[in-house]
Amino acid sequence: MVLFATLSFFQLMSQQPYALMLHGGAGNFDSNNFTAEEKADYRNIFEQVLIVGDSLLRNGIAAIDVAVICVAMLEDCPLFNAGKGAVFTAEGRHELDASVMNGKDLKAGAVAGVSTIKNPVLAARRVMDSTEHVMLIGPGAEKFAALQGLTLVDNTYFSTPEMHQRYLNASKSGTVGAVVLDRHGNLAAATSTGGMMMKKHGRVGDSPIIGAGTYADNKTCAVSCTGHGEYFIRYMAAFNIVAMMRYQQLSLEEACRRSIREMADAGGTGGVIAIDTNANVFAYFSTKSMFRAYTRNSAEFVIEF
Amino acid sequence: MVLFATLSFFQLMSQQPYALMLHGGAGNFDSNNFTAEEKADYRNIFEQVLIVGDSLLRNGIAAIDVAVICVAMLEDCPLFNAGKGAVFTAEGRHELDASVMNGKDLKAGAVAGVSTIKNPVLAARRVMDSTEHVMLIGPGAEKFAALQGLTLVDNTYFSTPEMHQRYLNASKSGTVGAVVLDRHGNLAAATSTGGMMMKKHGRVGDSPIIGAGTYADNKTCAVSCTGHGEYFIRYMAAFNIVAMMRYQQLSLEEACRRSIREMADAGGTGGVIAIDTNANVFAYFSTKSMFRAYTRNSAEFVIEF
Repeated sequence: MVLFATLSFFQLMSQQPYALMLHGGAGNFDSNNFTAEEKADYRNIFEQVLIVGDSLLRNGIAAIDVAVICVAMLEDCPLFNAGKGAVFTAEGRHELDASVMNGKDLKAGAVAGVSTIKNPVLAARRVMDSTEHVMLIGPGAEKFAALQGLTLVDNTYFSTPEMHQRYLNASKSGTVGAVVLDRHGNLAAATSTGGMMMKKHGRVGDSPIIGAGTYADNKTCAVSCTGHGEYFIRYMAAFNIVAMMRYQQLSLEEACRRSIREMADAGGTGGVIAIDTNANVFAYFSTKSMFRAYTRNSAEFVIEF
Repeated sequence: MVLFATLSFFQLMSQQPYALMLHGGAGNFDSNNFTAEEKADYRNIFEQVLIVGDSLLRNGIAAIDVAVICVAMLEDCPLFNAGKGAVFTAEGRHELDASVMNGKDLKAGAVAGVSTIKNPVLAARRVMDSTEHVMLIGPGAEKFAALQGLTLVDNTYFSTPEMHQRYLNASKSGTVGAVVLDRHGNLAAATSTGGMMMKKHGRVGDSPIIGAGTYADNKTCAVSCTGHGEYFIRYMAAFNIVAMMRYQQLSLEEACRRSIREMADAGGTGGVIAIDTNANVFAYFSTKSMFRAYTRNSAEFVIEF
């Protein structure tokens, strides 16, 4: 009985691939300049998230659940510019954005300009699941999150001065994201950010914009972006990858390259992680470096930056 | 000399086509039920805007300027759900969204969730021209508009109870938009809305989302959408048209049909206006009706609803 279960488990594995890729922002940092402790900190958080995500996927949990949980873990880590550790606005506060999309049914949710929701990605998920809407902004989004019973925090919760300096050195972005393929063949993507440093006037970048920073469609791929958000919006970076795969039958890799390069040619830098239903994962960036990590079918963990 | 000028004027016309298309929302209304006065009101406003837009285009004014001016005129008209005459939120207030995009350089601007800017489309234009950003939301966007010297109004300015009932009968949308080709071969699009009636929680639809409600690229077309905004975001309605023209070499008409039909098959209704650099204009909608109007090369005015 145990043998049978083990065999069928491996059969299942070979037949139904699953994979998970994460990012923690793209920037012109040089990880050779990181101290051993800094390197260990980044490796540890990615390893923790990969362990959780891989375990969930192995047990058949849905891609959308895994994407949201992984991004929530990255939000809770002060090393990144999302959730705790978010950058400061010009007024010395924090305004956060997040979005999620389920490739199974093209349902999506997003919040922008929120300042008291501990995990913006969970609020984005609730927008998708519990409303007829895709995007809620500002105080309205916070009121909704409160009604949904999500954890609210004082805006100072997001401030982590000691970590702030570290990621200033590392990356101006530090946006986080996850793309996931589950054992049922479903794709999902999630992205979360504290936005642009010293941003003014309620600026919103690509992270909460479906099609710009996040997209997922079971027919093609799931995508999460990070970088100079305005270019990612104007060039529809995420959906452009989907469109090239859908309409030109490009590979995941080639579509990612072309989308990022088109923006780079115009002066917009950043990176993307993407996954398709064959469990191909790919990261591509026009910056010097990008925090990224993946695992596939419970094999090795690959963590690079 | 006069003759020469006249000839070169017509030569110019034949060589450098220009065109302008407007919309005032798509919905399941039946214009046969409109009174003669109501019909005249709608015809008059579209005629006024076409006269202004056509005159500007004939004189060589840029597409982006014409698109913004036309949408600002439609915002000032209480017949539509944009600017004056915007629908009421669940709290009995008005929250407005707008976006603009210039096909010449893919620059774009948007504001969302604003409640005191008389002409949101002018604020979207300023975001594009005077900031490094694409999207500003809420109080930040209003502060920016004030600094830019735009006209601010009390939120009650947008309330027009007598007109409210009229467009309730006519259309649940009433979003307005313009797509323009100028004599220099440049395309532009602009969209403005009061959003969904009785909306809650800072809901944002497709109108201020570049790629969803608005897109313009000189290489393909300019697009402005109206309808069930959540579907237009999830299916990236505007950019999907651009992508099909770019990657599949579809005609403007065929790309518009496929984009709208894909959403209609999933349950999302609405309409789109689009224009290409050959001065083809096209409106397509999955609702019963759509307010739309166009003129081309200073020929006849076509107004339909």
